[in-house]
Amino acid sequence: MRAQGGLFLAVEGIDGSGKSGIVQHLAARLRAHGRDVVVTREPGGTPEGEAIRGLVLAGADEAWDPMAELLLMTAARVQHVRRVIAPALEAGSVVLSDRYAGSTLAYQGTGRGLSESFIRALHAEATGDLWPDLTLILDLDAATGLARSRRRLTGSAIDEGRFESLDLAFHERIRQSFRAQAARDPARHAVIDASGTPEQVQARALAALEPLLAAAR
Amino acid sequence: MRAQGGLFLAVEGIDGSGKSGIVQHLAARLRAHGRDVVVTREPGGTPEGEAIRGLVLAGADEAWDPMAELLLMTAARVQHVRRVIAPALEAGSVVLSDRYAGSTLAYQGTGRGLSESFIRALHAEATGDLWPDLTLILDLDAATGLARSRRRLTGSAIDEGRFESLDLAFHERIRQSFRAQAARDPARHAVIDASGTPEQVQARALAALEPLLAAAR
Ligand SMILES: Nc1ncnc2c1ncn2[C@@H]1O[C@H](COP(=O)(O)OP(=O)(O)O)[C@@H](O)[C@H]1O
Ligand SMILES: Nc1ncnc2c1ncn2[C@@H]1O[C@H](COP(=O)(O)OP(=O)(O)O)[C@@H](O)[C@H]1O
Ligand SMILES: [Mg+2]
Ligand SMILES: [Mg+2]
Repeated sequence: MRAQGGLFLAVEGIDGSGKSGIVQHLAARLRAHGRDVVVTREPGGTPEGEAIRGLVLAGADEAWDPMAELLLMTAARVQHVRRVIAPALEAGSVVLSDRYAGSTLAYQGTGRGLSESFIRALHAEATGDLWPDLTLILDLDAATGLARSRRRLTGSAIDEGRFESLDLAFHERIRQSFRAQAARDPARHAVIDASGTPEQVQARALAALEPLLAAAR
Repeated sequence: MRAQGGLFLAVEGIDGSGKSGIVQHLAARLRAHGRDVVVTREPGGTPEGEAIRGLVLAGADEAWDPMAELLLMTAARVQHVRRVIAPALEAGSVVLSDRYAGSTLAYQGTGRGLSESFIRALHAEATGDLWPDLTLILDLDAATGLARSRRRLTGSAIDEGRFESLDLAFHERIRQSFRAQAARDPARHAVIDASGTPEQVQARALAALEPLLAAAR
């Protein structure tokens, strides 16, 4: 446990797995229990990090070399950790981040093929090796995740024919990377079945937090 | 020597030491000798790198944590190396860069206090450890460099009273960092006395290049 009960939580998972919705739900529940909660996201979370997010996401898919992308993501994380996350933890708040370093391992590592050991060494040097007390992995098959996120983008269902099998295979690899991260360090990860209704997933996420919250009380 | 006579040259030195002028002069002389010359600069040299340069230089002095600044500079360098420098060298061109990794060692290392060994390890991983065949260090005392660059900025001399001793001490440390880099690897560095008239400095820089050009002929 951190100083004065500070607690660092991250929510990870493929696009459309329900991260942003779960973050909002957990923040409301934690606040209802009297906790001070800082909701944040990556890449971003600071003015400088949001500017980096804009640079990375604005470019065409091939604009950024994978290594450059890794360094940009990590630069944004340095600002995030030193300006937002560490001060909030020191103040005893709960920090709830929509994506964190697990996404870098998944997307720049498994996705873009950069060395996991280099990503971990860089993270250690750049952030003082700050990892969440608990990372919730919202585990969902890639087809369901893509269908949810495309509904979100268009506001209506789109036909399955537009899903490229390449996209599906890529997102399935990302999903497996998150599961492997959890298997490697089970004490600090909880894999949450993200299928089913929002209410079902919310209940599972809250249950996964329960031991940590009980310990903090 | 590189494939087909490609040659990688960098020009380093404190602000106002005459780098940009020397780069233009050397490019003209090398072209007059029939060489294909790619003139470039850091941070920058690619659309993505120029965007990063804009981010870093636009912020207030305290906007960026030193580690984030290092990662941004290195991200820009990755794009520069992979998209511009390496292809030009493979095509047999001379690449002439106004600043390169020596500036990162000087400003983020000596200046901002980050570990030199980490900067070097990051450079190795990010660029495949690409260093210039020769780095020309334009060596000038900090007071003269500041005076030159303030004349350039304002178009007229400004009174010495505005030079803060802090600035001078900082730039003197940067100067010493460049000299130490040269002392550490003398075969790939040439320290050029950058005092005196532009013509004198140009002659010294050309003389320092002569052995390399002779070998390439
Ligand atoms: N359990 C669920 N069942 C059906 N749709 C869901 C569920 N959870 C979230 N959604 C919807 O799926 C979309 C993606 O959810 P979101 O929280 O934005 O995911 P993420 O942040 O992981 O991309 C949103 O439109 C959201 O309302
Ligand atoms: N040897 C020199 N003597 C006097 N002024 C010089 C000399 N070399 C360059 N300058 C002037 O000093 C200023 C800085 O030179 P510049 O090439 O822009 O340096 P840098 O690129 O290292 O900052 C310019 O106004 C330039 O014309
Ligand atoms: Mg989201
Ligand atoms: Mg210049």
